[in-house]
Amino acid sequence: MALIVQKYGGTSVGSVERIKHVARKVLDAKQQGSDVVVVVSAMAGETNRLVDLAQQVAEFPDERERDVLLASGEQVSSALLSLAIRDLGHPARSFLAHQVRIETDKAYGKARIKSIDSTRIKRALKDGEIVVVAGFQGVDEEDNITTLGRGGSDTSAVAMAAALQAKVCEVYTDVEGVFTTDPAVCPSAKKLDRISFEEMIEMASTGAKVLQIRSVELAMKFTVPVHVRSSFMEAEGTWVVEEDESMDAVLVSGVTYDKNEAKITLLKVPDRPGLAAQIFSPIAEANIVVDMIIQNASEDGTTDLTFTVPTADHKRALSLVEKTASVIRARGVRVDPNIAKVSIVGVGMRTHAGVAARMFQILSREGINIEMISTSEIKISVVINEKHTEQAVRALHKAFIEQQGNL
Amino acid sequence: MALIVQKYGGTSVGSVERIKHVARKVLDAKQQGSDVVVVVSAMAGETNRLVDLAQQVAEFPDERERDVLLASGEQVSSALLSLAIRDLGHPARSFLAHQVRIETDKAYGKARIKSIDSTRIKRALKDGEIVVVAGFQGVDEEDNITTLGRGGSDTSAVAMAAALQAKVCEVYTDVEGVFTTDPAVCPSAKKLDRISFEEMIEMASTGAKVLQIRSVELAMKFTVPVHVRSSFMEAEGTWVVEEDESMDAVLVSGVTYDKNEAKITLLKVPDRPGLAAQIFSPIAEANIVVDMIIQNASEDGTTDLTFTVPTADHKRALSLVEKTASVIRARGVRVDPNIAKVSIVGVGMRTHAGVAARMFQILSREGINIEMISTSEIKISVVINEKHTEQAVRALHKAFIEQQGNL
Repeated sequence: MALIVQKYGGTSVGSVERIKHVARKVLDAKQQGSDVVVVVSAMAGETNRLVDLAQQVAEFPDERERDVLLASGEQVSSALLSLAIRDLGHPARSFLAHQVRIETDKAYGKARIKSIDSTRIKRALKDGEIVVVAGFQGVDEEDNITTLGRGGSDTSAVAMAAALQAKVCEVYTDVEGVFTTDPAVCPSAKKLDRISFEEMIEMASTGAKVLQIRSVELAMKFTVPVHVRSSFMEAEGTWVVEEDESMDAVLVSGVTYDKNEAKITLLKVPDRPGLAAQIFSPIAEANIVVDMIIQNASEDGTTDLTFTVPTADHKRALSLVEKTASVIRARGVRVDPNIAKVSIVGVGMRTHAGVAARMFQILSREGINIEMISTSEIKISVVINEKHTEQAVRALHKAFIEQQGNL
Repeated sequence: MALIVQKYGGTSVGSVERIKHVARKVLDAKQQGSDVVVVVSAMAGETNRLVDLAQQVAEFPDERERDVLLASGEQVSSALLSLAIRDLGHPARSFLAHQVRIETDKAYGKARIKSIDSTRIKRALKDGEIVVVAGFQGVDEEDNITTLGRGGSDTSAVAMAAALQAKVCEVYTDVEGVFTTDPAVCPSAKKLDRISFEEMIEMASTGAKVLQIRSVELAMKFTVPVHVRSSFMEAEGTWVVEEDESMDAVLVSGVTYDKNEAKITLLKVPDRPGLAAQIFSPIAEANIVVDMIIQNASEDGTTDLTFTVPTADHKRALSLVEKTASVIRARGVRVDPNIAKVSIVGVGMRTHAGVAARMFQILSREGINIEMISTSEIKISVVINEKHTEQAVRALHKAFIEQQGNL
């Protein structure tokens, strides 16, 4: 029997009525002849409520204890969904991370899944049960509870689909699929029917919030087709799949932005080998993810080094950098949280020249100054002043997507 | 180093401020030189909120799933208390049932603890940490989550104290200790300084809500002194300890009542051996606890059989009994949920005659009809119409406790 993994986000299970609605959708899939494993997020608002509680109780909440706290949200929603499915007359079982050993590393708050023991799930499926798994949570080798970071339930779902060799991982959310850009910024944004794993990774990395990056990486690694769709309507959403030839014809698939980064600059550091390691090792050890890094050597033997980190981590990063700065005799440290990263993504870039130049021209015509640039084979990102974000996104979407007849 | 187990109930951890207050109390105990293991209930109101959610989602919530849901309450409070203790600068660790293998049987909703693996707790204590354990929850041999029933955190705490050979189990609650009767019914009720395990079991069995019965049974079995006291004041509360000679001098230690029972009567059942087993086996299998049982054989070879069950279970019990009734050819089945059990408890009864007779006289003088009677060595219970409960309690308290100069 074919197996489907379905994932429902917080909005989709945000109330008793919605949980009942999801139960009916799950049962429909089962009755259409598939085995179904459902992965659920916490009810909308619950994770924020728990984060608030932690912050009220402790100024700097211990990460292990915070994860114990946060994981309770998915425990509640998985039990409720299982109860709702049973109330419709079909057997169902909820499982928590420790019961199906979703084993992760020890990086509390942003743990990575290492393995899943699917024995109990397979047994339950064989018994004809619908299986409901609490998303977002794992356990380390000592059975301490870990969580996978914001959007971590996507990754739970894809990992589950990979472990069970599901034919598809359906990600139900409150939007219709993946869009060419944020419709709130650009009303002419269109839903994509298909997108390649690599494009999706780049889009997620540069600000598209629809899937956790890690989940797409896993989907690509194990070739799990992911179908992102709305839990409130029947229409097909966006399929995230392996790249094929038709995708090459499209130059730019999406325009993304991210206002949640801050820029840190080390000024006039005496340049020498090992410098970058000295600066970034303490940051990596603190589990802070550095995104863009730019180094500009001057002729006077010093260098300016600029990098971006998540805004939420920038104060911690700054205090680490300031310690290093005095050791390496930097002239000073500057920080700017009011930046935005705007990106264009498309596999077509691989075979088309001049895309970057055109992007810079467009921004220049809009009078927008570029502070940093970073490129990959299928993506170009620029850092600009945060206040120009919407203007930049609209201009790039118009030029690269609307006028190219990409859709 | 001496070890103390402290248990805090839902009211004691009912808000962020109260959790911080508890953290300070826990730290005080630690700083006075004891190792401390804390067992916590869910924040006040949380378990009811979760029960409501379950009932909104499913008419007859599956018991396994319901336990997964309910156990989340203690997960939240144990993490928050651990965070709060750490915020005061002392290391602390929370543990859930599956992490310290509080193994129970499979009776979801009212599971009994079979064993605890204290390895991780001892290691944490050795490392100087304060240990916070989620109360109320356990896991069965397959790692399914179970809960111990209302007041189950008391039992978690005593079991933990027994497993760790703690010198005392302090149960912090929102009252000052164990009272001679419910002060809300009888303002002249007095706090007891000491009470024997057996008396406490009888009082808990007959309506005193301060401790879960099972916790006192465990305390008696493993001779764990239990100190019931208020989390809001420093004064000593009530010590629940082994019986000693001084306790014999007191005829009646407490007057209790319980309005949460319903009476079921099987009328004119043809009497024959094995009858009781036939009636009560299905009820036991449904995990419904039968309290009092009375059988009155008539001369016509039939018998009336009356018993009481928790009001919450009486509809389930009734439907089971009705099935049996037709098989055993009973004339009919009657049910009365509007009853109350009023009891007097005291180890002094063992050595004093006539206590029962005096109790019946007192109720008779008040014009209260007795519907059922049940006695043990140290307790007499009567079932009366619920509407006379307060009147009966006050009359018995006045006669047996206030006028006896027991205090």
